[in-house]
Amino acid sequence: MIALRSGFTLEGFLAGSLWTLLILVLALLSSRLGSRFADRSIRSIATRSPLREAGPRSEQRATTLAGVAVSLLRIFVWTMAGLLILGVVGVDLGPFLAGASIVGVALGFGAQSLVKDFLSGFFILAEDQYAVGDVITIADQTGTVEEIDLRITRLRAVDGTVWFVPNGEIRKVGNSAKDWGRAIVDVVIPRKSDLTAATAVIQEEAAAVAADPVWSDSVLEPPEILGVDAMGVDNITVRVSTKTTPGQRTPLAREMRSRISYRLQRDGMVAETTIPEAETPPTSSGD
Amino acid sequence: MIALRSGFTLEGFLAGSLWTLLILVLALLSSRLGSRFADRSIRSIATRSPLREAGPRSEQRATTLAGVAVSLLRIFVWTMAGLLILGVVGVDLGPFLAGASIVGVALGFGAQSLVKDFLSGFFILAEDQYAVGDVITIADQTGTVEEIDLRITRLRAVDGTVWFVPNGEIRKVGNSAKDWGRAIVDVVIPRKSDLTAATAVIQEEAAAVAADPVWSDSVLEPPEILGVDAMGVDNITVRVSTKTTPGQRTPLAREMRSRISYRLQRDGMVAETTIPEAETPPTSSGD
Amino acid sequence: MIALRSGFTLEGFLAGSLWTLLILVLALLSSRLGSRFADRSIRSIATRSPLREAGPRSEQRATTLAGVAVSLLRIFVWTMAGLLILGVVGVDLGPFLAGASIVGVALGFGAQSLVKDFLSGFFILAEDQYAVGDVITIADQTGTVEEIDLRITRLRAVDGTVWFVPNGEIRKVGNSAKDWGRAIVDVVIPRKSDLTAATAVIQEEAAAVAADPVWSDSVLEPPEILGVDAMGVDNITVRVSTKTTPGQRTPLAREMRSRISYRLQRDGMVAETTIPEAETPPTSSGD
Amino acid sequence: MIALRSGFTLEGFLAGSLWTLLILVLALLSSRLGSRFADRSIRSIATRSPLREAGPRSEQRATTLAGVAVSLLRIFVWTMAGLLILGVVGVDLGPFLAGASIVGVALGFGAQSLVKDFLSGFFILAEDQYAVGDVITIADQTGTVEEIDLRITRLRAVDGTVWFVPNGEIRKVGNSAKDWGRAIVDVVIPRKSDLTAATAVIQEEAAAVAADPVWSDSVLEPPEILGVDAMGVDNITVRVSTKTTPGQRTPLAREMRSRISYRLQRDGMVAETTIPEAETPPTSSGD
Amino acid sequence: MIALRSGFTLEGFLAGSLWTLLILVLALLSSRLGSRFADRSIRSIATRSPLREAGPRSEQRATTLAGVAVSLLRIFVWTMAGLLILGVVGVDLGPFLAGASIVGVALGFGAQSLVKDFLSGFFILAEDQYAVGDVITIADQTGTVEEIDLRITRLRAVDGTVWFVPNGEIRKVGNSAKDWGRAIVDVVIPRKSDLTAATAVIQEEAAAVAADPVWSDSVLEPPEILGVDAMGVDNITVRVSTKTTPGQRTPLAREMRSRISYRLQRDGMVAETTIPEAETPPTSSGD
Amino acid sequence: MIALRSGFTLEGFLAGSLWTLLILVLALLSSRLGSRFADRSIRSIATRSPLREAGPRSEQRATTLAGVAVSLLRIFVWTMAGLLILGVVGVDLGPFLAGASIVGVALGFGAQSLVKDFLSGFFILAEDQYAVGDVITIADQTGTVEEIDLRITRLRAVDGTVWFVPNGEIRKVGNSAKDWGRAIVDVVIPRKSDLTAATAVIQEEAAAVAADPVWSDSVLEPPEILGVDAMGVDNITVRVSTKTTPGQRTPLAREMRSRISYRLQRDGMVAETTIPEAETPPTSSGD
Amino acid sequence: MIALRSGFTLEGFLAGSLWTLLILVLALLSSRLGSRFADRSIRSIATRSPLREAGPRSEQRATTLAGVAVSLLRIFVWTMAGLLILGVVGVDLGPFLAGASIVGVALGFGAQSLVKDFLSGFFILAEDQYAVGDVITIADQTGTVEEIDLRITRLRAVDGTVWFVPNGEIRKVGNSAKDWGRAIVDVVIPRKSDLTAATAVIQEEAAAVAADPVWSDSVLEPPEILGVDAMGVDNITVRVSTKTTPGQRTPLAREMRSRISYRLQRDGMVAETTIPEAETPPTSSGD
Repeated sequence: MIALRSGFTLEGFLAGSLWTLLILVLALLSSRLGSRFADRSIRSIATRSPLREAGPRSEQRATTLAGVAVSLLRIFVWTMAGLLILGVVGVDLGPFLAGASIVGVALGFGAQSLVKDFLSGFFILAEDQYAVGDVITIADQTGTVEEIDLRITRLRAVDGTVWFVPNGEIRKVGNSAKDWGRAIVDVVIPRKSDLTAATAVIQEEAAAVAADPVWSDSVLEPPEILGVDAMGVDNITVRVSTKTTPGQRTPLAREMRSRISYRLQRDGMVAETTIPEAETPPTSSGD
Repeated sequence: MIALRSGFTLEGFLAGSLWTLLILVLALLSSRLGSRFADRSIRSIATRSPLREAGPRSEQRATTLAGVAVSLLRIFVWTMAGLLILGVVGVDLGPFLAGASIVGVALGFGAQSLVKDFLSGFFILAEDQYAVGDVITIADQTGTVEEIDLRITRLRAVDGTVWFVPNGEIRKVGNSAKDWGRAIVDVVIPRKSDLTAATAVIQEEAAAVAADPVWSDSVLEPPEILGVDAMGVDNITVRVSTKTTPGQRTPLAREMRSRISYRLQRDGMVAETTIPEAETPPTSSGD
Repeated sequence: MIALRSGFTLEGFLAGSLWTLLILVLALLSSRLGSRFADRSIRSIATRSPLREAGPRSEQRATTLAGVAVSLLRIFVWTMAGLLILGVVGVDLGPFLAGASIVGVALGFGAQSLVKDFLSGFFILAEDQYAVGDVITIADQTGTVEEIDLRITRLRAVDGTVWFVPNGEIRKVGNSAKDWGRAIVDVVIPRKSDLTAATAVIQEEAAAVAADPVWSDSVLEPPEILGVDAMGVDNITVRVSTKTTPGQRTPLAREMRSRISYRLQRDGMVAETTIPEAETPPTSSGD
Repeated sequence: MIALRSGFTLEGFLAGSLWTLLILVLALLSSRLGSRFADRSIRSIATRSPLREAGPRSEQRATTLAGVAVSLLRIFVWTMAGLLILGVVGVDLGPFLAGASIVGVALGFGAQSLVKDFLSGFFILAEDQYAVGDVITIADQTGTVEEIDLRITRLRAVDGTVWFVPNGEIRKVGNSAKDWGRAIVDVVIPRKSDLTAATAVIQEEAAAVAADPVWSDSVLEPPEILGVDAMGVDNITVRVSTKTTPGQRTPLAREMRSRISYRLQRDGMVAETTIPEAETPPTSSGD
Repeated sequence: MIALRSGFTLEGFLAGSLWTLLILVLALLSSRLGSRFADRSIRSIATRSPLREAGPRSEQRATTLAGVAVSLLRIFVWTMAGLLILGVVGVDLGPFLAGASIVGVALGFGAQSLVKDFLSGFFILAEDQYAVGDVITIADQTGTVEEIDLRITRLRAVDGTVWFVPNGEIRKVGNSAKDWGRAIVDVVIPRKSDLTAATAVIQEEAAAVAADPVWSDSVLEPPEILGVDAMGVDNITVRVSTKTTPGQRTPLAREMRSRISYRLQRDGMVAETTIPEAETPPTSSGD
Repeated sequence: MIALRSGFTLEGFLAGSLWTLLILVLALLSSRLGSRFADRSIRSIATRSPLREAGPRSEQRATTLAGVAVSLLRIFVWTMAGLLILGVVGVDLGPFLAGASIVGVALGFGAQSLVKDFLSGFFILAEDQYAVGDVITIADQTGTVEEIDLRITRLRAVDGTVWFVPNGEIRKVGNSAKDWGRAIVDVVIPRKSDLTAATAVIQEEAAAVAADPVWSDSVLEPPEILGVDAMGVDNITVRVSTKTTPGQRTPLAREMRSRISYRLQRDGMVAETTIPEAETPPTSSGD
Repeated sequence: MIALRSGFTLEGFLAGSLWTLLILVLALLSSRLGSRFADRSIRSIATRSPLREAGPRSEQRATTLAGVAVSLLRIFVWTMAGLLILGVVGVDLGPFLAGASIVGVALGFGAQSLVKDFLSGFFILAEDQYAVGDVITIADQTGTVEEIDLRITRLRAVDGTVWFVPNGEIRKVGNSAKDWGRAIVDVVIPRKSDLTAATAVIQEEAAAVAADPVWSDSVLEPPEILGVDAMGVDNITVRVSTKTTPGQRTPLAREMRSRISYRLQRDGMVAETTIPEAETPPTSSGD
């Protein structure tokens, strides 16, 4: 806490001058080299844009960002050099360090999500949770993976929207492209229709789809009528489950629904009312 | 922890005075230069207002904000100088630094969201997640990007509202203007109508739109009937999907809905009831 | 960590007394001046109440608050002075500082939202996100801005309620008063009515409003029928969009809805049922 | 870090004894005076209970709380004294301070919401956001303010429930008692009734209320028919807006609704069905 | 940072041995006394169980918990003693303290909710927010207060469930047992019935209840017809408000609802349909 | 901060060697003993599995976990030893401790939920909030307590699912097995049926259940008709409340509902419509 | 705080050189060995991919990740070495350490979720909360456990989607595969049908299922009619509960629902309306 060396000696003065010189030279060097390095790496990231739209725009963007990064680096290096020289001449750095800690807390807390992104990305890659081309659900978004790196995952949703999800936002991963899937079809029939007949119809149509040459390659196990899955006031829900290859889960379910709907309508096993169901929300045009 | 130098020496006194003088001169310099710099940069930000409404208002705003910033800078510089001088004369700065750490925690935590904004903005730009003119969804808000900088993104929603979203609030980005989109049209038909006929009608109209010279440039792949996507108690939903250019996704879907609605009505494939559906909420006048 | 100077010397005793005296004088000065300053600035804030209700109440409030602030300032100054004197006489301040750090953490964390308010307010002003008179949406509240300062924004909602929103609570800002707005009218028509005729009627009425001298100045671009935006079980929604001046968005939409409703009713293009729609919640009397 | 003075000297021993004695005397004094002060201030808070139910209960409560506070104070003072004496005899306090920092973090974090309460309360009072008697909405609770102090706001909801809301929980304040209010009445009419006639009836009744001597003083501007605010499948909503004195907003809206309901029923402009609306939830008896 | 005293002296050795001995004796004492104290206080808490079920179970529980607490205390005391002795012999404690800080952060953060509980409890008691026997709403739970202490509040819900709510979880308190309550009855009548007649009937029955000797003592102010509070598509809601004693709010509202229901049914002012309302969820048997 | 002792002396070298040896021996000892202790305690926890499925699996699990714990312990002990020796030879440990603090923050924050679990568990046990066999609601999960320890509570839900809830996740506890419960039966009757007759029937049946020898022991107070608890558009809800023994609350309510339903059906006091209620969701087969 | 040793001595210079050399050698060693170790362990994790898709892809992934880890390790080791050497030559490391603390806070906070994952995983394994093959519910996801390790749990949902859930995200665990389950069937019958008869039918069919040889092994206790569990406006819900083996809970419930539905339909105890229930949402094709 003694801020100034109490005794001034030539020896100390020489040593101090030497150190100061050394620090200045090193600062100059790291500032130069660091700037060149930062400039190059940012340029390479920014021009290697996800969708590869090279051209003047990405060039310009890279220039701007590299400029920002180089400025920050220089401020950092020269502040460090200044503090070290002050330390050499014996000034108490306490107040400066206290001031720096304010910036430090802000930077540290602000940057923690970046660390989370990289850590999360590391484990996603190391544990091979998903790969490019898989259909996954992360952070309430479903889509096909287009690109993964340590910081971000890029998805393409079914409506063509590209979603950029930082890996740190991913809490749990649902991957629908591993080994097998299961097409689950819930058929609602009026409670007063003949359950035995309806079940037979459903069974028949489900089997027909599975036997259809177009679909038979996708079906890993024959369809199974699981029974009445839900019982409402005047209708019941019969569930059919079929083990399929992962990618054919949804198309197969749609095909089964089409055929079963057609048969039930043909055989008159639908509610006869013409009053429409109240609960189908109109297809929103949010697309 | 020995607060005062135990021996008073002339040498020490002289050194102390010198240091004090030096600190005062430096403080004066940095206060002056810093003020000028702060004043200028804030003025340039504030008069370069997002929507470029130059004029007396932005001038006055700049003056006020620059005044606040300059005051804060001066308080900071002179506090630092005062503490350094106290350190030079040998006063124990512990209590002051402890007091400062209170302010530091508050400032650091309060400012962390600012750091987040800039970091987030840096990656949005570096990874080219979106650009001015793209239609994106961020922070539950959809709109056309009007401006991006390191701290904030400005969107224009479809109803004309301008949304300012700090980049740190952006957790995931949905960009609907990359490469292609998909127009998805869900057609609800009564379960007791003829599914085969209805599907044919839908197919026909969708193909007609795709072949229409007005739309054919927007259609990247011919429309595809995916099948029965959902099965309700007395109606089923048939989904049509068409790959389009990104910007034409919604208009094309609207056009298809118009034509299919018209045909189904003409051909009598709609529920005959006149009892309105219960679930359409009235169009809210929140606009 | 040697709490007491091991050697007692007259020289040290004299220096200590001098320092103690100096600290006491400075503490007295800063306590006096600080109190006067705090008192005045709080009075000026509190009597300059948002809605300018000068009078005995605001006077009394100012007195109370200034009293609280002055007390806090005095406690702070004299605690600092006491600690400095203890440091001068050589007492180890460790335990006191540890005790103070408890208070510091609590104060620092508690005050971080204040820092956030000011930082957020600074950027709202510097980036001119909104100004007095604009209709904005912040923190789930929509209203007309009545006052902005660095800490708080005051809104007046449409029902006359005044909302005080600390700027730090504002995550994204929606400003409906920039350049232009868009009046969006969704017209619901029964699915079994003639879509072509209905569209013609809607087109006609929308154009009539736009041509009406009362409204023509507000209309920046002629109304556009976007097509069928949503398709329900037994009704479809046709969307009309009109570019307007920002402030006329809602009134114009209401006028269009009135005229279109009238025409559709006159021409009999409404559901004929008398059974009321189930989903309109009764207008809540929460006002 | 040398825990014990390496040389034992009489001088040091005497100085140590003196310091120890001094610390003990000071600890005794602050313990005594502090206890008395804590006891009195808590008693004054606790017996000055919000609803002023003086009597044996509040007396007893005050005694208990004061006992707790005095015990805590004594533990604190004597721990400090003990640590100071240990410091005087030269024991390394590191382990103790590390132990204390655990308590410190817990206390500091636990107490931050208290700091928030006071800071928030300070600004509510300084900015005069609301006063006793105002009808406000804070923390999802609406009611009449019965008491405000720096820590807490007491509301009386319309059903008589008293709500104690710590000021730190208040994120935004809605004050319905400033300058003026606006009575907004949404009238739902069947889409197939004559809109022109219905609007005329609504206009007439609204004007009649405004002209009524009972209400005319509350009406600041004549009622205004804003037009069709929402369009449902088979009904439309016409909005009437009237600028009123703040307190009369809700009663005036109720009166208008009564009269308009009566007229519409008398003139037969209501849905003729007897099937009740499905969406009115039964009035819950949560009161 | 010089970890070992560079010079070994007999004097230092003796002093060290003395200190070591002293520390061991003190550790032994505090371990013994602390254990006894911890054991007793925990036993007294645990056997003074909320619902006073003394007996072997609470005895056994007390024994277990006291065992845990005593072990923790001993580990703490002897660790401290060990560290102090290491400090005396001159070992650098840095690594140990750094290790301890890990535990400290975990303990401190984990324990902060405990501090919150006590602080919150202190203010609940000091400000007399509620007392045993009051009906209150805290943390989304309504019930009668059965016990309050500094850490926890025990409620009895209407279905007999006992809720233990730590005071720190209480953000705002709703107390329905202060001074008065208001019985609010919302009567739904079909929009096509005669509003004047219906209002008269409601007024009559409400007044009859208020005049009833059974209820008249509970009624503080005569019932007031507030008017039409909500207007639906085919029904309107008339609100009656009566100021009552706090405890009679709900019973009085039920009585009024019974009588008004009876009269409206007798006078035929109910919807004539037999189609049940869709929205009453069946009484869940969650009890 | 002088990293190396400036003077090398034989004495210092010898002392250093001695200390190094001592540290190594102690490290060896604590590593050995600690490993054995960790191994044993983990084995005892892991083989004493909640559901007591002793056997090879739990044996193997114990071996794995003990291996992990022993490795961590060894790393910790030898790192400490290494740092102490470095300190003895006079190396500045600053960089190492700074590096360690990174790990420390991560560990400390990550482990805070563990501390919360134990603290929460301590109070649950000490205050006897629930015991094995009680039916409780914690963390949105209801079930019968099967086991409580300091870290976790194990519940068995009514469908047989076993829920493991860490005690720190428990914010409030609802215990339905204390002293008494209240069977609350809400009977919905059409608004146009005779309320007096219906109430009489309900009263009669409720009394009959209470008098039934099967149930009379469970009934602590005779059933009470509370009156009309809710009033809908075309139905009203009459509430019956009966004080019971805690465990018989739900069965008694079911019995009452059965009998009242039967009587009301027999006496024709039910809605005559055959149109089913719309709101009963079908019994989901989530079980 | 004296940054440079004030006296330059040959002895000190030699010692410094020696230390510097030693540090360099050690850094080289740990860099080499650490790299090899990191490389190997990451390779073993990454090639031991969850679903064992060995091959070029996992090989390549391992190479990339190992490269990243080795680079990070080298940066860390050489930074530490650099700082130690600077310390040896007597440079004040304060500014460097302050700079490092920024990185430290970010890393520490970012990594805390990793620590949580491992801690949580440790307790899941130690307390045997679930094992491979169990059907569990964690983090709102239900599925069959396919793999557990200390960091992550892998589930297979019923539709074939694989869910990766980090253990730290698991707050409470529901395990449906312990000892027994309970098949709960809620039968909805119209309120106007004969309750006694319906109950008899339900009882009969439930017993028939339990007696059926296919199911009798799964039934641990005979089915029990619990009574009327819920009472709606025009229907009541009768609950049947059967204790089963854990895995047969859902299939048995489906079988019972099928048989009871069939019988009730055959015996005419269903609502006769043909108007479909409004609330069954159509089976979404989210699969």
